[in-house]
Amino acid sequence: MSATKNNEKLKVAICGGSGYTGIELLRILSGHPQVKITAVTSEKSAGKKVTDLFPHLQKYRNLTYQPLNKTGLLHEADLFFLALPHGASQEAVHFFFENKKQVIDLSADYRLADPRVYQEWYGLSHQYLATLKKAVFGLPEIYRSRIKKAKLIANPGCYPTSAILGLLPALKNNLIDASNIIIDSKSGTSGAGRKSDLAVSFCEVNEGFKAYGIGTHRHTPEIEQELSLAAGKKIRVNFTPHLLPVDRGILTTAYAPLSKRTDTATVLNIYKKLYRNEPFVCVLDEGIFPNMKNVRGTNFCHIGIKVVPRTNTLIIVSVIDNLVKGASGQAVHNMNIMMGFDETSGLDSLALFP
Amino acid sequence: MSATKNNEKLKVAICGGSGYTGIELLRILSGHPQVKITAVTSEKSAGKKVTDLFPHLQKYRNLTYQPLNKTGLLHEADLFFLALPHGASQEAVHFFFENKKQVIDLSADYRLADPRVYQEWYGLSHQYLATLKKAVFGLPEIYRSRIKKAKLIANPGCYPTSAILGLLPALKNNLIDASNIIIDSKSGTSGAGRKSDLAVSFCEVNEGFKAYGIGTHRHTPEIEQELSLAAGKKIRVNFTPHLLPVDRGILTTAYAPLSKRTDTATVLNIYKKLYRNEPFVCVLDEGIFPNMKNVRGTNFCHIGIKVVPRTNTLIIVSVIDNLVKGASGQAVHNMNIMMGFDETSGLDSLALFP
Amino acid sequence: MSATKNNEKLKVAICGGSGYTGIELLRILSGHPQVKITAVTSEKSAGKKVTDLFPHLQKYRNLTYQPLNKTGLLHEADLFFLALPHGASQEAVHFFFENKKQVIDLSADYRLADPRVYQEWYGLSHQYLATLKKAVFGLPEIYRSRIKKAKLIANPGCYPTSAILGLLPALKNNLIDASNIIIDSKSGTSGAGRKSDLAVSFCEVNEGFKAYGIGTHRHTPEIEQELSLAAGKKIRVNFTPHLLPVDRGILTTAYAPLSKRTDTATVLNIYKKLYRNEPFVCVLDEGIFPNMKNVRGTNFCHIGIKVVPRTNTLIIVSVIDNLVKGASGQAVHNMNIMMGFDETSGLDSLALFP
Amino acid sequence: MSATKNNEKLKVAICGGSGYTGIELLRILSGHPQVKITAVTSEKSAGKKVTDLFPHLQKYRNLTYQPLNKTGLLHEADLFFLALPHGASQEAVHFFFENKKQVIDLSADYRLADPRVYQEWYGLSHQYLATLKKAVFGLPEIYRSRIKKAKLIANPGCYPTSAILGLLPALKNNLIDASNIIIDSKSGTSGAGRKSDLAVSFCEVNEGFKAYGIGTHRHTPEIEQELSLAAGKKIRVNFTPHLLPVDRGILTTAYAPLSKRTDTATVLNIYKKLYRNEPFVCVLDEGIFPNMKNVRGTNFCHIGIKVVPRTNTLIIVSVIDNLVKGASGQAVHNMNIMMGFDETSGLDSLALFP
Repeated sequence: MSATKNNEKLKVAICGGSGYTGIELLRILSGHPQVKITAVTSEKSAGKKVTDLFPHLQKYRNLTYQPLNKTGLLHEADLFFLALPHGASQEAVHFFFENKKQVIDLSADYRLADPRVYQEWYGLSHQYLATLKKAVFGLPEIYRSRIKKAKLIANPGCYPTSAILGLLPALKNNLIDASNIIIDSKSGTSGAGRKSDLAVSFCEVNEGFKAYGIGTHRHTPEIEQELSLAAGKKIRVNFTPHLLPVDRGILTTAYAPLSKRTDTATVLNIYKKLYRNEPFVCVLDEGIFPNMKNVRGTNFCHIGIKVVPRTNTLIIVSVIDNLVKGASGQAVHNMNIMMGFDETSGLDSLALFP
Repeated sequence: MSATKNNEKLKVAICGGSGYTGIELLRILSGHPQVKITAVTSEKSAGKKVTDLFPHLQKYRNLTYQPLNKTGLLHEADLFFLALPHGASQEAVHFFFENKKQVIDLSADYRLADPRVYQEWYGLSHQYLATLKKAVFGLPEIYRSRIKKAKLIANPGCYPTSAILGLLPALKNNLIDASNIIIDSKSGTSGAGRKSDLAVSFCEVNEGFKAYGIGTHRHTPEIEQELSLAAGKKIRVNFTPHLLPVDRGILTTAYAPLSKRTDTATVLNIYKKLYRNEPFVCVLDEGIFPNMKNVRGTNFCHIGIKVVPRTNTLIIVSVIDNLVKGASGQAVHNMNIMMGFDETSGLDSLALFP
Repeated sequence: MSATKNNEKLKVAICGGSGYTGIELLRILSGHPQVKITAVTSEKSAGKKVTDLFPHLQKYRNLTYQPLNKTGLLHEADLFFLALPHGASQEAVHFFFENKKQVIDLSADYRLADPRVYQEWYGLSHQYLATLKKAVFGLPEIYRSRIKKAKLIANPGCYPTSAILGLLPALKNNLIDASNIIIDSKSGTSGAGRKSDLAVSFCEVNEGFKAYGIGTHRHTPEIEQELSLAAGKKIRVNFTPHLLPVDRGILTTAYAPLSKRTDTATVLNIYKKLYRNEPFVCVLDEGIFPNMKNVRGTNFCHIGIKVVPRTNTLIIVSVIDNLVKGASGQAVHNMNIMMGFDETSGLDSLALFP
Repeated sequence: MSATKNNEKLKVAICGGSGYTGIELLRILSGHPQVKITAVTSEKSAGKKVTDLFPHLQKYRNLTYQPLNKTGLLHEADLFFLALPHGASQEAVHFFFENKKQVIDLSADYRLADPRVYQEWYGLSHQYLATLKKAVFGLPEIYRSRIKKAKLIANPGCYPTSAILGLLPALKNNLIDASNIIIDSKSGTSGAGRKSDLAVSFCEVNEGFKAYGIGTHRHTPEIEQELSLAAGKKIRVNFTPHLLPVDRGILTTAYAPLSKRTDTATVLNIYKKLYRNEPFVCVLDEGIFPNMKNVRGTNFCHIGIKVVPRTNTLIIVSVIDNLVKGASGQAVHNMNIMMGFDETSGLDSLALFP
């Protein structure tokens, strides 16, 4: 790769590059023709080569983790992916944004428009309200036109992405009673992050299955924010996450009473119409339901629909890869839209099956 | 073991002994002090030794599969466990029952009291209506006194066991709006049985997760039958099963609107009271939710409860081992009750963890 | 994609496209800029759309399985990947080869140069001895220059690829006693193919581990053929395969007595030197040993080396993805070499980790 | 359980009762008719109830972890299982032994008869040489008569148990060249213990496989000690452990050149003869090889044998459950022998399959 060529590429930095979403950004961007990664940070692993920690990232043989020296990084990159812990991201996002950098934040810090809701669920007050107002919620299927012009993207959470995409067409078309939605989600273990923690050790997770954070999970207000906007009124949902003994993937099963009698074919048509131009949403034909494994490693969301006449209920099953469409892939998609790149650049490989 | 001793033991036959529920009966009964297995049948494997198929069953070195010759078996055993396919069980159950044998049927053929419902969901007409009337639904937590006097037990399905035990105290105490129950269940792959089938091959199931039979699964009417009895009125439920990439276990997450404002502690007290004398139901303390792995290989059902004030919803999580409390263990529990044995005989080992 | 552009691309057919190696070819080739898939065959699934069987292959929405009509296919493609069962491939390879097509055969039918050895291990006589002589064993690290000119490639088996790459530098440099090699290999379950078979059903494989085909596995003569050539004398090896409860990957642990005292660093240098220009072989630094997961979904082979002075033994650990470097990826690599494409075209994505 | 009955039971303490071997002792002993657990220690969890950490251990609802107060414990129990870390066990074993308690030590501290070898591999000097001399290596298949009279048992390591049982008959009968033994072992992840460690976190282990500690694993001298005694001469072996993505189990594949030509049937007879009275060793018939899953949760060792005439090699495959026969089950077996209990007490349940 010649220097000239590199200079033409977008210079990108990844802050927080040793977690699962960080290395997933490295994996995805390694196949992106218009991007050059110029810096990657990690406090714990500063000074180590990327390949010391991750022997599968041989393409980054010359990349070394550095500490998050924000001022220094200003000269190294034009777009910043931030994969920092919630709370820690607030100030870093503000800094790069203030310094006219494009920012895509994978934390939750800029997702909730109402700082009181953020305070309530995260126990933190938001210090950068002006910046918060500039943030665009990075779900392309809803906010594409705003993302095009955005300088700061709050990349959606994994559970919210699966839940919102599944329920959006039903709410926008008034198909369901919005006051009575159940969202039962199941996530692979990578959603818990890369860490030393007995709770995610192999022998505790393998061959097991459990619910957690029932009624209290922090993705609840994010889901409610977007579904309320779609429904045109403030709604509350029941959201229950579960931990699956698999590496990757989220499957969300959503339930809602139908507003009026209809059938699966009619609802499917509405779904297919809404998503017909979306490169990463695939509404499956009647009678087919998505398997999490079919989107592994990809930015796709597969959706299956069933109207149950006996109970007059709409059941929606949606699957994504939590690390791709639920995090790093959606972040790259947002970058592509912001920069005017082809939307699928870096994101067009097929699922690894089996 | 002396001949005399053996003669004093209950002689038990297992019809359909080469599937997962059949060998689970063999495993559990190997530790039962009052039972002797005198015959085990398998059409496909007739003539083969049990240990030829299952090297882990070395205690049954002298046991050989025989074909299901019903008349011949009458002389060999006094109690019959039937682990035959749905439909195939109808006639066999009737035959042994008519011949004054005690019968515990693990199929669905005698679970639905209303033969029209059976016809509707299983596509079969019931040929033995008089016998059907004698069948007792073998959920000891509800029907213990009837089981004591029963000669024919319809052993409950795996999903229904987890769902009914989870919802029973709420319905009996009018805690919830019974017309609006969501039952989202997840089962390990052994629930699909032991078979050559691409759909359950390792590479199709492993690292995947999917819903199936949405709105149409045959366990739905069984759940509705028992919940309707508990609620004192006819109700319908939404029941969605999912396939987990683990060997064993069912976790059911049930949702229902609360009838009136209450809190978790109050509901937990009601649950603990109802189940306080039950040897196999364990209601967990507030803030603790069950992990499927904690009941693996046991007849236990663990239940966790959460009242969500924001949505005024009761969320119940229950776990069982689908092959034990969901099938063979419950069958042995029923036998223990019928025969006046200690209820926990053969069922007192602890979960294999990890 | 314009018609013109398509016409410029290499037209490729996949015969036997519904197995795991077949769909892996589809996955890999979807990212290949110089290839167009014009036909895919499957006897069982003829008439079905690829996406009916494999919802993750949405890029092939317009591709339909057809029966293997060899004459008809001559007009559709210029290069044929054959992923047919052993034995069935003999005649098909010969047909396409005779008709001046380029052929890459993923079966074992053309791998063994000596038809008597083929007869001995596969129980079949070889009917096309003249064609057999034209076949080049498609291991690029040994036969690159012959592959460039070849018209027929016998693509190596998965176990042989891992074993040969691990032992090649040691044998070529006379580091070890070639008469006393132990090859202990462990493979993911996809190596058994995509089929309805109780032996590969989830509950039989999961949480288990076993050896199989001890002393009799058909990959033995293939390994011996190539190691004998490398050693310059006829050798026999002990080769034991094992079945791992994972989807993909082979790890081979090879043992051999050292010819003379040496140390790990010296041996590593020899290995690194031999493979220094290889795009897909990565010799790890001293003290680092490969994890199968680090090559998942890629064409890489990672190799770790240890000299054990206490026993004067060389221990070599090599890992590949059995479906990529062990099958379809290596096939594409061979195509790239034959056609003069960039060797890494279609093969440059990074491992999916985790 | 009446006080009288309890008083008749053996009072047992478990020191280090919150790790996987500790809770496995609790699981196994819960089914032992002649044992009462009177104390269980854990430094980290002192003051917590056993069921707070392990909801599956409901039978121990009244048991609370206490710190390891050795003097205080003297009054509480007569037999001590020590499941403490290597090194930490030295002094504790000595203390209880000096105070006339029976001790079964699951650490490595008293396994190696030669304190210089212990120093070399564990980096620690042994402080209690007189006590070390009293320790009996607790492999019942070799040392049953000494165990009967022992007061201090050094319970064997998991890998050594599988390797020694597999090779013992071959060495005792001079079937193999003892100077050239390869031991390739694969263990489930519970062998690494219960801990917060990124290296055993789910996403790092799952779908992966790797070798570790090549040529340096601490179980090597333990294997060599016992195999040397069996062979009647000092021997060294190559031992390579690997990490399997399963909870439990070890499979060891051992290779050795045959001393003279023989066949599988002949070797099998020798194996079956040696182990014919062993309650926990099962030599499988010709052509059958053991699956780790068939011994899960049990104290069994299954062994399969193959003579490979082509290479004149004996290949032995042995499987155990690392937490049972490889640790806690063997410890209970040793207790049974020491105390004159039935050898299979507490150990007669069948494998959990699937």
